[in-house]
Amino acid sequence: MNDRFLKACLRQSVDRTPVWFMRQAGRYMAEYQAIRRRHSILDVCKTPALAAEVTLQPIQRFQLDAAIIFADILLPLEAMGLNLEFVEGKGPVIDNPIRDEVSIVQLRPVDGDAFNYAGEAIRQALEALNDRVPLIGFAGAPFTLASYAIEGGSSRDYARTKQLMFSQPIVWHQLLSKLSAVVIEYLRVQSRAGAQAIQLFDSWVGCLSPGDYEEYVLPHVQGIFSALRVEGIPLIYFGTGTAGLLPLMRKAGSDVMGVDWRIRLDEGWAMVGHDVGIQGNLDPMVLFASEKEIERRVRDIMQQAAGRPGHIFNLGHGILPTTPLSSVEFAIDCVRRFSPDSQVVM
Amino acid sequence: MNDRFLKACLRQSVDRTPVWFMRQAGRYMAEYQAIRRRHSILDVCKTPALAAEVTLQPIQRFQLDAAIIFADILLPLEAMGLNLEFVEGKGPVIDNPIRDEVSIVQLRPVDGDAFNYAGEAIRQALEALNDRVPLIGFAGAPFTLASYAIEGGSSRDYARTKQLMFSQPIVWHQLLSKLSAVVIEYLRVQSRAGAQAIQLFDSWVGCLSPGDYEEYVLPHVQGIFSALRVEGIPLIYFGTGTAGLLPLMRKAGSDVMGVDWRIRLDEGWAMVGHDVGIQGNLDPMVLFASEKEIERRVRDIMQQAAGRPGHIFNLGHGILPTTPLSSVEFAIDCVRRFSPDSQVVM
Repeated sequence: MNDRFLKACLRQSVDRTPVWFMRQAGRYMAEYQAIRRRHSILDVCKTPALAAEVTLQPIQRFQLDAAIIFADILLPLEAMGLNLEFVEGKGPVIDNPIRDEVSIVQLRPVDGDAFNYAGEAIRQALEALNDRVPLIGFAGAPFTLASYAIEGGSSRDYARTKQLMFSQPIVWHQLLSKLSAVVIEYLRVQSRAGAQAIQLFDSWVGCLSPGDYEEYVLPHVQGIFSALRVEGIPLIYFGTGTAGLLPLMRKAGSDVMGVDWRIRLDEGWAMVGHDVGIQGNLDPMVLFASEKEIERRVRDIMQQAAGRPGHIFNLGHGILPTTPLSSVEFAIDCVRRFSPDSQVVM
Repeated sequence: MNDRFLKACLRQSVDRTPVWFMRQAGRYMAEYQAIRRRHSILDVCKTPALAAEVTLQPIQRFQLDAAIIFADILLPLEAMGLNLEFVEGKGPVIDNPIRDEVSIVQLRPVDGDAFNYAGEAIRQALEALNDRVPLIGFAGAPFTLASYAIEGGSSRDYARTKQLMFSQPIVWHQLLSKLSAVVIEYLRVQSRAGAQAIQLFDSWVGCLSPGDYEEYVLPHVQGIFSALRVEGIPLIYFGTGTAGLLPLMRKAGSDVMGVDWRIRLDEGWAMVGHDVGIQGNLDPMVLFASEKEIERRVRDIMQQAAGRPGHIFNLGHGILPTTPLSSVEFAIDCVRRFSPDSQVVM
């Protein structure tokens, strides 16, 4: 198997820098759109054959070094009793959001059985991958899940979420404990089905102050990574807008930190320490620019990481729906061309 | 005059830490709502007597150390020919956004005469203030103006803005030059009418990578501050989500850097250097929490700044519409209580 992704996660020397893209299975691909014309996002997530098929689509088309199972970061919420829907042009919508303590008590604590479909999707994807590249499992992190559960969808200022956090800290911690327990179950199912790495998406955690992150979020993420540590696979922790949080997020205990483009990769890596890997960090919007611009920016990121083991090239957030396929291919090619011959341990 | 705000801008010793709040004249005040029931936002901005009246409202009610003229960061766009409207629940909307090079060419280059109303509003506000506290003038920074002009309103990913920036850098620079020239005119009118400090709001610049900020934005902001330097009044540069950009933003040349809550105040200050002042950085959402929580967070910020001249207490972004008045008053009181007896030069 092509294991340069797994090696880089553990900061081992590799022949070239591994590359994969968040949301690499998605709307920018005609193959994906064809399936989505007949099935909802939730259907695809919950039908193992479809999830596996979509997972493989980018692997068949591009020279990627990892696959990521097709799923959604919010599936744990759906299992707990929230009505998750994906509305065109709006993203995820929850019509029975958490608005009081009662609705937190009513959240179903579920065990791994609720995620049998996810285990089966992983197994079918692994079979289809046939050891070409490793398969990544993932879930939303508890803060990001809580923000959707409370706001009822995406948000600009996370007003209700912070209001709960600031006004009812004990209730907040209860909610995050409950979410974390389900996230652990969900990720364990994926790991035990054979996922070779796990990424925790704390996409919106960057809206918090460092003090609030440390007090209201970090302990829960630490709990998740510590529970998953025994699985023996690399753990990645990702968020956006985290330039002020990185040293604290590092304490959560992942092997790799995912960073977005809002901080230089080398500065972000220095902040978290070179004893963890770093994943990132091209602005997804760059893939709409000319090849010359794409090349310039990929080269810059590669130079910032050069010579140090542990860099996984990725975007700083998910690939955007209308991204040209040719740009994806070109960016991957740039990563190969600008890879150091081998990442030497320094 | 209470000049502790102006002294702190220049990092001079003050008897206690000055405090003002972005959007302190606004929807959370009944007095403001009463005026807005009869006048649109643009009407209030463009009617000097109304703008002055609204500017004074928070000064009459709270022990603030600075007033900020009531206006909108997007007024330069309106003067240049874009149809600016404020839509309830949506914020600013521009129905003839910039979508191509032609619409950039068509933007009216305006001189200071276009902003006579702003000068008159400043003069009337100064008269009403009667030397109680200094008056701050302001404008949007060119990137943030461009983002509204191009997207036609607020945005989540600034897709069109970045597309122009990445794909047509020369056109981008033309647009920013044109915007900067008008911003300079607008701010000069405010300064010459008597504004005692100027704040440049680059509210959304935090969506950029450091490299893109440096190449596509910084030169223009440098141009603005350098043109305003001769006015001889303190200059403040503010943005949100800027934890990865601060060292570059520092190069723009302001006297004070405004930071949001997404980075610790002491870390932000260390990043920009202690030879500039720092303004911030309470999360506006904290004002919805209990007095105990407000007190805890204000104290924490005050401790991070303690003993060093040049801290101006503020929120990390504008005060939110439904903020309780009692919390505003309480936070101001906390700033007073936790101020060092005097900020000693270190």
